[in-house]
Amino acid sequence: MIHAADIKPIEHRVSLAEREARSGHAGGVLWLTGLSGAGKSTLAFALEETLFRDGFQIAVLDGDNMRHGLNDDLGFAHADRTENIRRVGHVAALLAMLGYICVSAFISPYRADREKARQAVMRDLPPGRFHEVYVRADLATCEMRDPKGLYRKARAGQIKRFTAVDDVYEAPERPSLVIDTTKESVARSLATLTRFVTSRFAAGLGEKEPG
Amino acid sequence: MIHAADIKPIEHRVSLAEREARSGHAGGVLWLTGLSGAGKSTLAFALEETLFRDGFQIAVLDGDNMRHGLNDDLGFAHADRTENIRRVGHVAALLAMLGYICVSAFISPYRADREKARQAVMRDLPPGRFHEVYVRADLATCEMRDPKGLYRKARAGQIKRFTAVDDVYEAPERPSLVIDTTKESVARSLATLTRFVTSRFAAGLGEKEPG
Repeated sequence: MIHAADIKPIEHRVSLAEREARSGHAGGVLWLTGLSGAGKSTLAFALEETLFRDGFQIAVLDGDNMRHGLNDDLGFAHADRTENIRRVGHVAALLAMLGYICVSAFISPYRADREKARQAVMRDLPPGRFHEVYVRADLATCEMRDPKGLYRKARAGQIKRFTAVDDVYEAPERPSLVIDTTKESVARSLATLTRFVTSRFAAGLGEKEPG
Repeated sequence: MIHAADIKPIEHRVSLAEREARSGHAGGVLWLTGLSGAGKSTLAFALEETLFRDGFQIAVLDGDNMRHGLNDDLGFAHADRTENIRRVGHVAALLAMLGYICVSAFISPYRADREKARQAVMRDLPPGRFHEVYVRADLATCEMRDPKGLYRKARAGQIKRFTAVDDVYEAPERPSLVIDTTKESVARSLATLTRFVTSRFAAGLGEKEPG
């Protein structure tokens, strides 16, 4: 068999700096984590729309969408969730290297998996390009919202190992940002996120700064 | 367990048309296939550089690079090669949906795998966005070039199941384009590819057509 040692990466001739200059901002990853129903996808898609209209190159990777494509071979057992997040981390890094702001919106319940995603990004990009955002809402609130009816199914025993019902959610220890959607409206949460992204990814690029 | 039926894709609020208008050209996939040493990566990276400088949004997915990231869990057995190409097809589709021209450069020896990659792109995008390009060179030429020393190892029995040595290469039956690198120089092959991409992805976008 061919071994990994036989395979050497080839350097791209278009640098990250050139990609970022064209985007008008830095590439990087905004990693949203939180319970099902906390508002990750809602905020991610709203942020994508807002910042795209402001001239940003931004793309959402979303648990629901990814599982219909790249990750449609994976289930929800611990190993599958870990592999799900491993792959998303690498795709996010790839988008960041193209000068995109990649907003990933996954429950990503396990700390170790999120750490590996961070490392996948940090391996390929300069420091400061991966930001963990804790989209926080208490379980009662998420269960009341239950936008996909999944909590109801989990309580009825029709779904096993559902995060925060009968599987663990390991909250971030040092997130870059906390958005509390129990207390804050979508509009206000979105404004906070927009300011955060602008300050982290658009600052320092001078006159190329969008919007 | 959660089932796939519980997971519904969420519609992105930024359309493909908007992404493409910003790129100034259509999004799509140029799928290069051919033997190791045929020149896929050389042409892909040269094309990326040329068209990026001309204002295109273009990105290469390359076998060597992908295997150090997303696909670093895969070997080279038949099932692993199939999974490698399956994942690349989905990532290529994702980039195309962002209005990128994705140039994938993989041996991708099996016809059925390439067909699945095509389907992954066709599922998400309008017709005419996936083009198979056969980068053709005879085995003797590839073996003489042997840029990574892999043919030598394969002949010495140090690598098993190497494409065209002791594993099959299923040539495209109806490729959109054939580049014969045994007969044509890199410069000429690159010119052919550049014209092809421009005619397929930049035509019809009128004054938004890049440089």
